Amino acid sequence: MGRCIMREVKSFIEKRDGVEADENNIFLTNGATEGITFMLNLLIKDENDGIMIPIPQYPMYSALITKFEGTQVPYYLDESKGWGMSYKELERSYAEATDKGINVRSMVVINPGNPTGQVLTQEDLNRVIQFAHDKQIFLLADEVYQRNIYVDKEFCSVRKALSELGSPYNDDVELASFHSLSKGLHGECGLRGGFMELHNMNDFANAMMYKSKAVALCSNIIGQIGVGLMVNPPTEDTVSKEVFDLYQTQEQEIFNGLKYRANLITEKLNSIEGVTCNEVEGAMYAFPQIRLHQSYCDLAQQEGLSPDLKYCLEILAKTGIMIVPGSGFGQEEGTYHFRITNLVNSKTEMTKALDRIGEFTSEIMSVYK
Amino acid sequence: MGRCIMREVKSFIEKRDGVEADENNIFLTNGATEGITFMLNLLIKDENDGIMIPIPQYPMYSALITKFEGTQVPYYLDESKGWGMSYKELERSYAEATDKGINVRSMVVINPGNPTGQVLTQEDLNRVIQFAHDKQIFLLADEVYQRNIYVDKEFCSVRKALSELGSPYNDDVELASFHSLSKGLHGECGLRGGFMELHNMNDFANAMMYKSKAVALCSNIIGQIGVGLMVNPPTEDTVSKEVFDLYQTQEQEIFNGLKYRANLITEKLNSIEGVTCNEVEGAMYAFPQIRLHQSYCDLAQQEGLSPDLKYCLEILAKTGIMIVPGSGFGQEEGTYHFRITNLVNSKTEMTKALDRIGEFTSEIMSVYK
Repeated sequence: MGRCIMREVKSFIEKRDGVEADENNIFLTNGATEGITFMLNLLIKDENDGIMIPIPQYPMYSALITKFEGTQVPYYLDESKGWGMSYKELERSYAEATDKGINVRSMVVINPGNPTGQVLTQEDLNRVIQFAHDKQIFLLADEVYQRNIYVDKEFCSVRKALSELGSPYNDDVELASFHSLSKGLHGECGLRGGFMELHNMNDFANAMMYKSKAVALCSNIIGQIGVGLMVNPPTEDTVSKEVFDLYQTQEQEIFNGLKYRANLITEKLNSIEGVTCNEVEGAMYAFPQIRLHQSYCDLAQQEGLSPDLKYCLEILAKTGIMIVPGSGFGQEEGTYHFRITNLVNSKTEMTKALDRIGEFTSEIMSVYK
Repeated sequence: MGRCIMREVKSFIEKRDGVEADENNIFLTNGATEGITFMLNLLIKDENDGIMIPIPQYPMYSALITKFEGTQVPYYLDESKGWGMSYKELERSYAEATDKGINVRSMVVINPGNPTGQVLTQEDLNRVIQFAHDKQIFLLADEVYQRNIYVDKEFCSVRKALSELGSPYNDDVELASFHSLSKGLHGECGLRGGFMELHNMNDFANAMMYKSKAVALCSNIIGQIGVGLMVNPPTEDTVSKEVFDLYQTQEQEIFNGLKYRANLITEKLNSIEGVTCNEVEGAMYAFPQIRLHQSYCDLAQQEGLSPDLKYCLEILAKTGIMIVPGSGFGQEEGTYHFRITNLVNSKTEMTKALDRIGEFTSEIMSVYK
């Protein structure tokens, strides 16, 4: 059965990217996490092997790099440019690592960004690809939020950008890209379904990958079926009109809710004194900056807490709302952030929550100034 | 929901073993494989760390030890004594490894045996426990076939043996035991459900385990629910009489089929000239020995094949029956085996298959003698 679903994934990629895909390069996984784990395990030999990751990042990356005893090579997203990626920063990050004797093996691109929500353009991706080609590094493209875009931008996969750039890039840049059933509009995270597509992978590494995946046995079949349904959804030809309309309506409702809340978050957070938030272009989060006063930071230090952690703990205690301190995702030295998700499935509740965060923050800002 | 199922697993262990279990020591996993992978990853630092594994063994163990760059420390099961385990052999295996500078960290016990099918007695387990206690090694108990016992022996978990041995063993021998939804009478291998229970695990290692498991996110929930149903099956109190009776009847039918075929395999294989097979006491396989003539072995060598592989390939080509050469599982130097499963769900088909193996083997035996 896995084989049928691999074929469905192949068609999905071909249609999405206008490329020719090979089902033998597609692996069905227990969520995207499993695929990423496999790849990092394969890419990291020891602490001399570096993996470039965006900062802020999804903490699974730092955790796995630590687990496999590799070295994180951070490249910073530019908050002042909507969490944009800069070629200059990639070069700086790479040079700093190689100066220390690190062998930069791979670079992670998260698009749309997690937790930052930015959507990369094809031009951005072209620069990443040229960089990967120049440095001969393996690209890991985390594209699990590809359907979660709320602005007037189209998702472009690294695979598509590669294909349209053509030779020599499309023939030599090694790429693994990941997708998941846990995000998008279905959000079936508990089913643990996902896939990984490999492109230009070295034959020997590919053989090792197969062996390693075979030892772990297949991913769970319900997750596999979920992936099949995600990449090959009901159409007017395959289901009754009634079912098709219901499916369309439900998807649209879920998408509209996500989009509404993404806008609401940007708007509400930016109206709070001391808080600024880039437009949430995609994914399921915002990563606003909060400018905490020095006296608040000093107090936090006395309590042995980072200022953002103190802020988040107090919000939790005072309002019952759980937001996550920025330190876990990485942030530029001396700046403080938090991550908030847009998954509260009610406009009223989300509005209330944002208002409470606003009230509490105003209180802090008036006490510590 | 995971928490509820961890509680069901806790009750299951308490009832099965007459012990007190702690739900915080129970991890739900994507099949037993995932738990075993986690533990071996945790236990192996480098090639100086040795893991004792039975020979013959389930090849996942050797593959994972290789993957994590540890060293296999084989202990041989005694084919002449029904694939029994001997304390003397454990000591020999341990001494040989430590003489080479290997730090023996852990020992794997597979009970009922895979692929050998033997069922260990509580006395056998007591000796294993004393050995683990003396050498201060971590026990990994692969008990996924605990419901697959076809002779007049009762399954005894390592956890139960430990508890009944009492102090000091029960307070200091570190143990991880594994169970799975993939075997037993349900055989839902595609759902990838399993659990692992830790006992006496070092606090620091336990904390690392939690962290590592958290990065991998939860196991798939359908597999979790399956595990819940396995450890807390329908009873007369929870379902209607009709459903309960149907459940009982179906379980009994599956069990009787497995038991019938286990006996059939032992009987039929032992009737083939040149083949001997220990009684299949449990699990889902037999691991018979085949005495291939020197001239056949020489021919195999000329063809660049191990004799057991040649034999299995020829059976496949001639009869369409796939059996697995013993070399993948490990066997004493100069002996040849194959593994056959008892999962063909038809008495007639199984009988036919065994007869064909018999005919083909007689042919080989008459040609090469």
